[in-house]
Amino acid sequence: MPAPLSSTTRSTLTRKKNRAALDRADLHGVLDEALICHVGLVLNGSPVVLPTGYGRDGDTLYFHGSTGSGNLRAAAAHVDVCVTVTILDGIVYARSLNNHSMNYRSAVVHGRARAVTEAEEKLHGLRTITDHLTPGSWEHAREVNSKELAAVAVLTLDLTEASVKIRSGDPSDEPEDLAEGTAWAGVLPLRTSFGEPTPAPYVPGETPIPDHVVARTHP
Amino acid sequence: MPAPLSSTTRSTLTRKKNRAALDRADLHGVLDEALICHVGLVLNGSPVVLPTGYGRDGDTLYFHGSTGSGNLRAAAAHVDVCVTVTILDGIVYARSLNNHSMNYRSAVVHGRARAVTEAEEKLHGLRTITDHLTPGSWEHAREVNSKELAAVAVLTLDLTEASVKIRSGDPSDEPEDLAEGTAWAGVLPLRTSFGEPTPAPYVPGETPIPDHVVARTHP
Repeated sequence: MPAPLSSTTRSTLTRKKNRAALDRADLHGVLDEALICHVGLVLNGSPVVLPTGYGRDGDTLYFHGSTGSGNLRAAAAHVDVCVTVTILDGIVYARSLNNHSMNYRSAVVHGRARAVTEAEEKLHGLRTITDHLTPGSWEHAREVNSKELAAVAVLTLDLTEASVKIRSGDPSDEPEDLAEGTAWAGVLPLRTSFGEPTPAPYVPGETPIPDHVVARTHP
Repeated sequence: MPAPLSSTTRSTLTRKKNRAALDRADLHGVLDEALICHVGLVLNGSPVVLPTGYGRDGDTLYFHGSTGSGNLRAAAAHVDVCVTVTILDGIVYARSLNNHSMNYRSAVVHGRARAVTEAEEKLHGLRTITDHLTPGSWEHAREVNSKELAAVAVLTLDLTEASVKIRSGDPSDEPEDLAEGTAWAGVLPLRTSFGEPTPAPYVPGETPIPDHVVARTHP
C-alpha cells in the first residue's frame, strides 16, 4: 500500500474514507485537469473563499492576483490557507433520495502561502499559471513587462499537506431498494468542453486563430 | 440605481469594482445555475474549504452532509462561514499575457450557518437541495425515512450578506498592444453539458430513463 499523501489531522478524511485517494499522482491529476481553485483564508476572523487561477510545477502550486487585493495581501502574510479544487464528473441518481450523490474528484491543500518577490521566480510562477490556463500563450502573446510584473502578486504553496477524495461509478442503494425499488437509478455524466473561439473586435478578420487555441476545441 | 446587494465591508469588493453586480437577481441567477458551492469555515484556527451541494429557496441557502462530518459540525455550531459559487464561462486570451483573464460569474455569501433540527424544515431543506441538484427526483425516488432524516445534517444560511462578481465579453488590451500588437486575442467559451445517462447495473434493461433525467441532456 502506498504511503498516504499526507498524514496530518486536517488532511486526513474523517468521513467516507473509502473515497480517499492516497496517491500523489491522483493529486496531480486533479490539479492538472481543473482550471480554477477556491482559496480559503481567515480575514479579520472570518473565513473568505475566493475563486482564482493557478498552475502546478512539481509539488508547488502558484496562484496570482493584483497586489491591490486585500485578500491576496492576507494570503501573502504567511498565514494558513486552504486551496480546494473540485471536478464534478456526474450526477448520481439512486433509487432512494438519501443515496443520491455526485461523482467528483476533489483536492484539498493546506499550508502557508508565500509571496514570491524575486523577479525570476515570479516570472516562473506566472509562466506556470499561464501554461496551465492558456497553454501556448506564453510563447504567443506579448511578454510581461517590468511594470506589469511589479503590479502582480504571485503566491506559492507547497503541496505537502493535501488530501484527495474521489467518487466514481454507479449509485449505491440500500438492500431493500435493490430488492423492491422501482425508481430509476444511474449516472448522468457531466462534461466540460470548449466552444468556438470568438476573436476580439480589434483583431483583423484575416488573422488565423492560433493552433494552441484551436487545439482545445477538439480534445 | 438599485440598492447594493449588501454593504458590509467584507461583501464590498475592493478590486475590479466594475465587475461587481449589484442586483439580487444576479445573485439568484448564479446560485440557480451552478451545481456545487465551496463552503469555507475556520476549524482549529485554520481555514477549510469543502465542495458541497446546495439549494436555494428565496433568500435562504440550504446545504447538507452527514452528521458525522467534523466540518459540518463546526459549521452548525453557529460560526461564520463563507459560501462561494463560481461559474466559469470562458478563457480570455489577450494580446498581452498580463491581460489574459477568465469570463466568470461568482457569488460570495458571508454569514452564520444554522443547523436545521425540526423535521418539517429539515425535509423542506432536503427537498430544496434535491430540486436544485436532481430536479424531478423528489417525486420519483423513494422518500427519506426517519432514520435517514436523523442521520443527515441540513444547514441553512441567509443570503443577506453577499456579493456577485461578473466578467464577460471581449479581452481588454493596452493601447500600445491595440496599435502595434499582432498576437491573437479573443474568448474561448467554456460549456458544461450532460452526457448520456448510464443506468445502474441493478436497473432492469427495459426500464425507461425518466423524463426528468432525459430533459437535462438536451437543454
